[in-house]
Amino acid sequence: MTDAQMTALAASTATAGEILSSHLTAQAGAFLRALPQAVGEVGARPGSVAASSAGTEDLLRAVRRIGGVLHTFAATFEPAWAQESRTELRWLLNLLAQEPGYVRRSARLLGALDTLSGAEPGSGLRGPGMLAGHAGAPKARALLDRQLTLARTRVHSSVLQELRSARLHALADRMTLLVGEVPLLAQADGRAAVVLLPQATAALAALGAGAERLPLHRAATPYGGDGMRRLGSVPAARGALDADALMAADDEPWHQVRILLKRARYALEVCARPAEGLDALDVTLALHQDAADAAAHAATAARTPRITPATAYVLGVVHADQRLEVEAARYAFGRQWPDISPSIDGWEEPPAPRMA
Amino acid sequence: MTDAQMTALAASTATAGEILSSHLTAQAGAFLRALPQAVGEVGARPGSVAASSAGTEDLLRAVRRIGGVLHTFAATFEPAWAQESRTELRWLLNLLAQEPGYVRRSARLLGALDTLSGAEPGSGLRGPGMLAGHAGAPKARALLDRQLTLARTRVHSSVLQELRSARLHALADRMTLLVGEVPLLAQADGRAAVVLLPQATAALAALGAGAERLPLHRAATPYGGDGMRRLGSVPAARGALDADALMAADDEPWHQVRILLKRARYALEVCARPAEGLDALDVTLALHQDAADAAAHAATAARTPRITPATAYVLGVVHADQRLEVEAARYAFGRQWPDISPSIDGWEEPPAPRMA
Repeated sequence: MTDAQMTALAASTATAGEILSSHLTAQAGAFLRALPQAVGEVGARPGSVAASSAGTEDLLRAVRRIGGVLHTFAATFEPAWAQESRTELRWLLNLLAQEPGYVRRSARLLGALDTLSGAEPGSGLRGPGMLAGHAGAPKARALLDRQLTLARTRVHSSVLQELRSARLHALADRMTLLVGEVPLLAQADGRAAVVLLPQATAALAALGAGAERLPLHRAATPYGGDGMRRLGSVPAARGALDADALMAADDEPWHQVRILLKRARYALEVCARPAEGLDALDVTLALHQDAADAAAHAATAARTPRITPATAYVLGVVHADQRLEVEAARYAFGRQWPDISPSIDGWEEPPAPRMA
Repeated sequence: MTDAQMTALAASTATAGEILSSHLTAQAGAFLRALPQAVGEVGARPGSVAASSAGTEDLLRAVRRIGGVLHTFAATFEPAWAQESRTELRWLLNLLAQEPGYVRRSARLLGALDTLSGAEPGSGLRGPGMLAGHAGAPKARALLDRQLTLARTRVHSSVLQELRSARLHALADRMTLLVGEVPLLAQADGRAAVVLLPQATAALAALGAGAERLPLHRAATPYGGDGMRRLGSVPAARGALDADALMAADDEPWHQVRILLKRARYALEVCARPAEGLDALDVTLALHQDAADAAAHAATAARTPRITPATAYVLGVVHADQRLEVEAARYAFGRQWPDISPSIDGWEEPPAPRMA
C-alpha cells in the first residue's frame, strides 16, 4: 500500500472502491510482472532445486493477496467475476505451490534425519542425535530422497505443461483487465471506513472464532502429547480407526486457521493497518503445516514394499520427531495467540454522515 | 525418625552416635521384619506380576536408607564394616530391583503403545494416538510383551535362588548385629549438630554440584530436543558413533544426580529435616530413568531378527515417544530445580564450646 493510500484511508475521504481499486491494480500489476519470470524459473530447473525463485514468490504473493481481498471484501465486487477469479487464482496457487512444497518437505525430512543421525554438516555445536550410527538411517535417507525427487520431477512436468495452457493465458488476460478496471458494485462508492471496516472486521472475527475452536487447552502445557498421543477427542470407534486420517482430521482446524490468518493479514494490508503479530503466527502455523506434511510423508514412506525393518524403524522415529514438531508448533501458537489476538478497536471512527 | 530423635537433635544434646544408632537400629529392624515377607512375595509369583509387594518395598526402603547413611556419614563408622555392609546392601538392592524394573518397563512400554494406538482401555477422555489402527501396533505389542515376560521370568528364577543363598543369610545376620550395636568410631561421641552437619552438608553439596554439571541450559526451553536430537556435545567422531552408547552416556549424569538426591534425602531424614522438595525431584528423575530404560528397550527390540517393517516402524515411534518423555523430564527437572536447591542455611547453629 502506498503512502497516498494510507493517507487516503486515514483521512477517510477516499471511497472503498478507490482503495480496493488501487490495491488490486497494484497487485495485478505485480502478477503480470512476475508471471514471465516465474514461468522462466520453472522451465529453467528440470528436476533440480531452483537457484532462484524470486519470480515465483512474487507471483504467489500477488495471487494470495488478490484472492484474499476478493474473498474478504466480496460484498464490494461483481459476484460472478470475483468468484471466477478466485477459482482461477486458487488453481494457480495450488499449481505453483506443489513443487516448492516438495522442496521444503525434502529439506525438512532429510534435515531431520541428518540431525537425528548426527551427520549434520558443520555441526560443531550440536552433538549427534538418537539415530547416530543407526544402520537404517542412510537407507531411510536414500529412500526419502529418491521418493521426493521422483514426486517433484513428476509435478514439475505437469506444472510446466499447465504454465503453457490456455487456462493460464486466460488468467493473465483477466489480470490485465483488472489493471484497467476493477468490477465494483455500487456500494463501493461509500466511504472506505464505512464500507471496508465491517468486512475487514468480519475477517478478523472469523480468525478469532477459528482460533477459539482450536483445542488450545490440549497444547497449553509443553509435552502434553497433543497431536501425538491424543488426536482429537474422537471416541475410539474400533475398527474404523486409521491413524493417517485421524491425524489429518486433527491437523485440519489448524490449517484452516492459517487460511483465516492470511485473509486477515491481507485485509489489514488493504486498510493499511500493521499485521506484525499475525506474521509471527503465520510463521508458527507454516511450521505446523510443514511438520504435519513431513510426518505424513514419513508414515507413507514406511509402507513402501520390501524396505528393511531398520529403514522402517528410522522412518518411525522420523515420523514421531515430526509429530513432535507439530505439537511444539501448537504449544508455541497457544503462547503467542493471547498476546496478539487481533483487535480492531483502534479503527472505530464515527460513521460518516450519510448525506455528507 | 521418632519424635524423641527430632527433639534430641533440636536440643543438640544427643551425640552423633546416638542419632545414627537410633536411626540405623530402626532401619535394620525394618529390614529384618520385611525380609521374610519379601522372600515370600517373590516365591509366591512364579512369573506373574506380584499381587502385593509391600514386603519387598519395605525391604528396599530400609536397604536404601541404611546404604545411604553408611555412605554419607562414613567418617563416623568403622570403615571396613561400613564398606562391606554397603557392598552387600547394594547387591541385594540390585537383585531385588530387577524384577520390579521389568514390571515397570513392561507397563510403561505397553501403556505407551496402547495410548499411541488409541487402544487404551476406558479412554473416554482421550482420543486415539498417532499409531491408531496401525498394522504393526499389535505385533510390536506382542513382541515387547513376550520379550519382557521372558526376561522377567528369567530374572525371577535367579532372584529366587539368590534369596536362598548363604550370602543373604550373612546379610541378615549382619543386620541382626546392627540392631544390637552400630560399629561407631570415637568421633561419633561428638554432638550431633557438630559431627553430622558437615557430613550432611557435604551430601547436599554433592547433589548441588551434580545438578550444576547437568546441561540444564539444553533443556531450558520446551521442545529443545535435548536427549533426542542432541546427545551431549560430543564432537561427531565419524565411525565411532553408536546411538545406544551415546544415549546411555547422555543419560548417565542424570542417573548420577538421582543417586546423589537419594543420599541427600536420607541424610536429611537422619537430621530430621524436611525433604519434600527432594521427593518431587526424585519423582521426576525416576520418570527420566524409566523412560530412558524403556526407550533403550524399544531400540533393542527393533533389532530382533525377522520382525516385519511395520513392527519395526512402530518400535521406532515408541522409541522416539520414550525419548520425548526423557526430554520432558529434563525440562521438568530444570523448572523444579532452582526453586528447591537444597540449602542448609537454617541448620547453622553455633558450634558447641569444646570443653562444655
